[in-house]
Amino acid sequence: MKYVDLRSDTVTQPTPDMRRAMAEAEVGDDVYLDDPTILELERLAAATLGKEAALFVPTGTMGNQLAIMTHTRRGDEIIAGANSHIVVHEVGAAAILSGVSTRTVSNPNDYIYPHDVRGALRSDDIHEPPTRLLCLENALSNGRVMPIDLMMRLYATAKDAGLMVHLDGARIFNAAASLGVAARDLAACADSVMFCVSKGLCAPVGSLLCGSREFVARARKNRKILGGGMRQAGVLAAAGIIAVERMTKRLHEDHENARYLAKLMAELPYMELDPESVEINMVFFTVTKPGFDSDLFVDFMFQNGVKITGAQSESEAGPVFRFVTNNDVTPYDIDYVARLLHEYLE
Amino acid sequence: MKYVDLRSDTVTQPTPDMRRAMAEAEVGDDVYLDDPTILELERLAAATLGKEAALFVPTGTMGNQLAIMTHTRRGDEIIAGANSHIVVHEVGAAAILSGVSTRTVSNPNDYIYPHDVRGALRSDDIHEPPTRLLCLENALSNGRVMPIDLMMRLYATAKDAGLMVHLDGARIFNAAASLGVAARDLAACADSVMFCVSKGLCAPVGSLLCGSREFVARARKNRKILGGGMRQAGVLAAAGIIAVERMTKRLHEDHENARYLAKLMAELPYMELDPESVEINMVFFTVTKPGFDSDLFVDFMFQNGVKITGAQSESEAGPVFRFVTNNDVTPYDIDYVARLLHEYLE
Amino acid sequence: MKYVDLRSDTVTQPTPDMRRAMAEAEVGDDVYLDDPTILELERLAAATLGKEAALFVPTGTMGNQLAIMTHTRRGDEIIAGANSHIVVHEVGAAAILSGVSTRTVSNPNDYIYPHDVRGALRSDDIHEPPTRLLCLENALSNGRVMPIDLMMRLYATAKDAGLMVHLDGARIFNAAASLGVAARDLAACADSVMFCVSKGLCAPVGSLLCGSREFVARARKNRKILGGGMRQAGVLAAAGIIAVERMTKRLHEDHENARYLAKLMAELPYMELDPESVEINMVFFTVTKPGFDSDLFVDFMFQNGVKITGAQSESEAGPVFRFVTNNDVTPYDIDYVARLLHEYLE
Amino acid sequence: MKYVDLRSDTVTQPTPDMRRAMAEAEVGDDVYLDDPTILELERLAAATLGKEAALFVPTGTMGNQLAIMTHTRRGDEIIAGANSHIVVHEVGAAAILSGVSTRTVSNPNDYIYPHDVRGALRSDDIHEPPTRLLCLENALSNGRVMPIDLMMRLYATAKDAGLMVHLDGARIFNAAASLGVAARDLAACADSVMFCVSKGLCAPVGSLLCGSREFVARARKNRKILGGGMRQAGVLAAAGIIAVERMTKRLHEDHENARYLAKLMAELPYMELDPESVEINMVFFTVTKPGFDSDLFVDFMFQNGVKITGAQSESEAGPVFRFVTNNDVTPYDIDYVARLLHEYLE
Repeated sequence: MKYVDLRSDTVTQPTPDMRRAMAEAEVGDDVYLDDPTILELERLAAATLGKEAALFVPTGTMGNQLAIMTHTRRGDEIIAGANSHIVVHEVGAAAILSGVSTRTVSNPNDYIYPHDVRGALRSDDIHEPPTRLLCLENALSNGRVMPIDLMMRLYATAKDAGLMVHLDGARIFNAAASLGVAARDLAACADSVMFCVSKGLCAPVGSLLCGSREFVARARKNRKILGGGMRQAGVLAAAGIIAVERMTKRLHEDHENARYLAKLMAELPYMELDPESVEINMVFFTVTKPGFDSDLFVDFMFQNGVKITGAQSESEAGPVFRFVTNNDVTPYDIDYVARLLHEYLE
Repeated sequence: MKYVDLRSDTVTQPTPDMRRAMAEAEVGDDVYLDDPTILELERLAAATLGKEAALFVPTGTMGNQLAIMTHTRRGDEIIAGANSHIVVHEVGAAAILSGVSTRTVSNPNDYIYPHDVRGALRSDDIHEPPTRLLCLENALSNGRVMPIDLMMRLYATAKDAGLMVHLDGARIFNAAASLGVAARDLAACADSVMFCVSKGLCAPVGSLLCGSREFVARARKNRKILGGGMRQAGVLAAAGIIAVERMTKRLHEDHENARYLAKLMAELPYMELDPESVEINMVFFTVTKPGFDSDLFVDFMFQNGVKITGAQSESEAGPVFRFVTNNDVTPYDIDYVARLLHEYLE
Repeated sequence: MKYVDLRSDTVTQPTPDMRRAMAEAEVGDDVYLDDPTILELERLAAATLGKEAALFVPTGTMGNQLAIMTHTRRGDEIIAGANSHIVVHEVGAAAILSGVSTRTVSNPNDYIYPHDVRGALRSDDIHEPPTRLLCLENALSNGRVMPIDLMMRLYATAKDAGLMVHLDGARIFNAAASLGVAARDLAACADSVMFCVSKGLCAPVGSLLCGSREFVARARKNRKILGGGMRQAGVLAAAGIIAVERMTKRLHEDHENARYLAKLMAELPYMELDPESVEINMVFFTVTKPGFDSDLFVDFMFQNGVKITGAQSESEAGPVFRFVTNNDVTPYDIDYVARLLHEYLE
Repeated sequence: MKYVDLRSDTVTQPTPDMRRAMAEAEVGDDVYLDDPTILELERLAAATLGKEAALFVPTGTMGNQLAIMTHTRRGDEIIAGANSHIVVHEVGAAAILSGVSTRTVSNPNDYIYPHDVRGALRSDDIHEPPTRLLCLENALSNGRVMPIDLMMRLYATAKDAGLMVHLDGARIFNAAASLGVAARDLAACADSVMFCVSKGLCAPVGSLLCGSREFVARARKNRKILGGGMRQAGVLAAAGIIAVERMTKRLHEDHENARYLAKLMAELPYMELDPESVEINMVFFTVTKPGFDSDLFVDFMFQNGVKITGAQSESEAGPVFRFVTNNDVTPYDIDYVARLLHEYLE
């Protein structure tokens, strides 16, 4: 059975082109810098984001944690959004791997503002750790996209305070597509950027950490500490090259599909949802039906061929869900999902 | 020149009784558990707080960090108030020494509420670290005292969630005096408690970490890791015994003096201050005089024999200062300070 | 130009079968446990090594470090051979990631003996960290194979002392082939085992960490901390399955080729080498020619189509080199290398 | 009952002069740098050891760990003797607190030699951590004193390799007295030095970490992380000043007493002991009597008013014990101990 999978864009299947490229990839031992396909992807990533160099890593989490490890010294403090992936979804790794504290800032829309950053800075009082790094994220994993002028102001604020800036750009190409700018314009607001070729770009595995040549050299050594120095990784890079060169150009389709889905859903009963808030490939909605049971709902959808994740959170109005469109979700699938929802909710 | 020192209660001088006791203390090598005066203080501390055992440590910071180190495993997450001493004034030690993340909760009055704790708990999702410990603080270092029934509800909430509870009771006897309860009643709301015999209790050096016998045994080993296993520390414990036995009984005088100071100050021009908010030995106030310069003010006070700390923060109304009364500050001193302030501000 | 690559068995190219399998692999999101090919490889690995469960990781270093992280608590001590991969080639990761100390034991032949382990144990004195884990390695990365009865005695010694045992079996199938036993017999001498499907088994990327179900579940969470939780990693697992099912059966060819190379080389002038010492696919030799320059030698070989690594160390007799045979090195290549050496050394 | 305590020189009681000085000490809050007695001791310590600055810490372990923390970055490697206090008696703190690995060197006499250091250096290969610090110890805690010319050569070797050098000088004044040099001459062979005013110098608590002004400033901040920033610590420093000014001049008496004890003991039956090997205040000896029981021996001595530690280790000839002379052990006590031993062993 072929499922419509709306759980995340991490579930995307590699395309036939990618599979072919993986099978034919020229590879070598990347620990010896001998893998030509890895080197090509690293060059392509750096050029695309306007950075001097890039490093292939197996996951976005490793890319983010390497950035923290490489920018900081043991005992430093970093600033990040309270709902950022680094804070919420990386298992507390910054304290474990880098021995750094994380000071969080929070706002209703999950943006970070310059005055947040200034308010979170530490003094050089003997009781306080030095603040070293500002971590941004765009697009946010709740689908929010931060405007580029806000990012530019944050970068300026950080530089005034002597901070380095890392951008968790796992979905930077979604943000760029949504904002109508180039990814490199967003990357210009940070000293280092991580982006994923998996997720919406459909490569099976891999992320790139981009920054200055010197930064990437140190990150390469730190990657060895984390056990991220793979051998003939060119088989993965071959798919990554297609992800960067071709798949970035079609992300707007996922966004259109998400808006289409949101529009259909907004018309359903017991459905609280603002189609205008859909900025990338994610639709958040609240089910307000009395007696509604989240587990039964997930089960019903699964029985009918649609994989979804359970409620992300509970609002006062009801449980909040996230549906994510991706390369494997077609407008036809969306019509089907909307019909199914209608059947379940009415 | 004898200064009136309002910077903190950490500046208190040991009393003549304490000096005599230190000179005459029976001592031994505490690493071999051979120091009778240390053993006596540890027994006294445990009994006073209603715990099975206690451990003498050189500072409150070490006591708090040992509690974290002993309650957690590498990679755990702890919950603490955003303005707590552990978060603000311990140099990010929890991440460095214990490899744990700190999730902060914040509220206008710096209390922590049960729903804060519940909201900060982590699930056992693979992306999330386990929540292990709730850190409370009472009295807070901003002079606030948390009601005992709130502490009891927090303890129950933590236990429901399977958390351990540590109480930073650096000023637990101030809190107890303010609330009119016994320190052991507050200590009953936590699995471990740290309190200081320095600060308002006037001993020159030292804090006690109290808890179950098994917890203290493990903390004793961890103390060795931090380099806190002192030798003939009975000279310090001799003063600590006096601190616990006698000085705890006079803390209400510092509180009365603080209220007296607050009352006098509230009548001064350009002074924003609520005498009703004074719960222990700390007076917070805002100077609203146009053109007021904090550094010049500190300098003026110093020239006139009064040591104060610079502005703690900036409110919209003006700079916020903290004055702290202690055993070395008399009502006469307070009259003098009030006259001085009047002279400077009018 | 096609090079003969004797630098390591990490340089092996994926076989045509592997490339085909990667292109056709059924994949899913392994973070959701949705990747059928990963699940199949993990089952196969566990069954092959006689353990309850297995976890796919991108590198052997990550597998070893996850084992340490999962077996220990912050502050524990582990025992390992002074020349083991964990000590020499993993960038000091055990201290960084796990906060554990490593106590090393050393012997001329790099074996570890039970009395070494007993001598390295710590007491429960307050000055000493608890010893938690014994790390073994077989085959060693210097080509040495430890006898199985010694491993059994080490395991018994560790269990007597209450230690867990981890086996770095990056080349466990080489060791098994050399000893004429099954890999599972070696794995029975350890609580956890890591082996690589890359290296001599030719898969492009990946290692498996095997152990009890409970151990692997905790390691899976720790893998997330290190950023090792990949998505559609089934493309790699497809090659890994072939590595385990088929390539393990041909490792003896690499060993025979290494012995053949050693035999040819032993007849060359200025060559110090004991063909009897060749136990797996590695030939160590010393060049004793006066005035011999290691860099020029490496360069000459490269100019003539043979990649080798520079001297591993300097003995009194001269520089020591390591040649490694692998799936891409044929007997014909070996004849060519021997002729080339003869030409250079005579 | 007054015991003769030969367990260690850590058991020494403060002298009457010290007790008086503690009672009369002028003190302040050292976190504010307000304690004049602490400042005086720090100046005295720096001047005595020929360093720019010094920092008071509660224990020698904290002094050593602060040195490691201040000289290194997370992930570095340090070199230390396999039997050094840092390796054997500090609970693995270097890995926990600083995230550094320790590479040990060992020799029959526990000296470290320049070629050991060169052999332990790491290359800048991507698999290896950077070597940052060489830790020396003199006198060793087994009573051995390293010659000053060897220390000078070690310092030169370290500098050639770009390493910093820390000297664990817990008993540096014992070493200096034994070698007939000034402590500052030994301190000149290191970038940082820790020495204890407790132990043979009789102060109840405290050690000094000495080094450059910049180093000590950073160590002062790191001391806060470990919870070593005490308040009115001048009460301890008052004893420390006497320790440095007067007690250092009498250590040779402890050495003479140890040699006297060794001479008497060498004449006893079943006693293996070389009086010539006594360099400071420690006598190591092996009891060779058949059927000798260490626990009964310790018990017998205790029943007769002599505290000793159980066997340090087991040699082939029998259990090895350590007796330590100190300020509280007189020649008369030594005669008594020798008679007691004679009675027990004959």
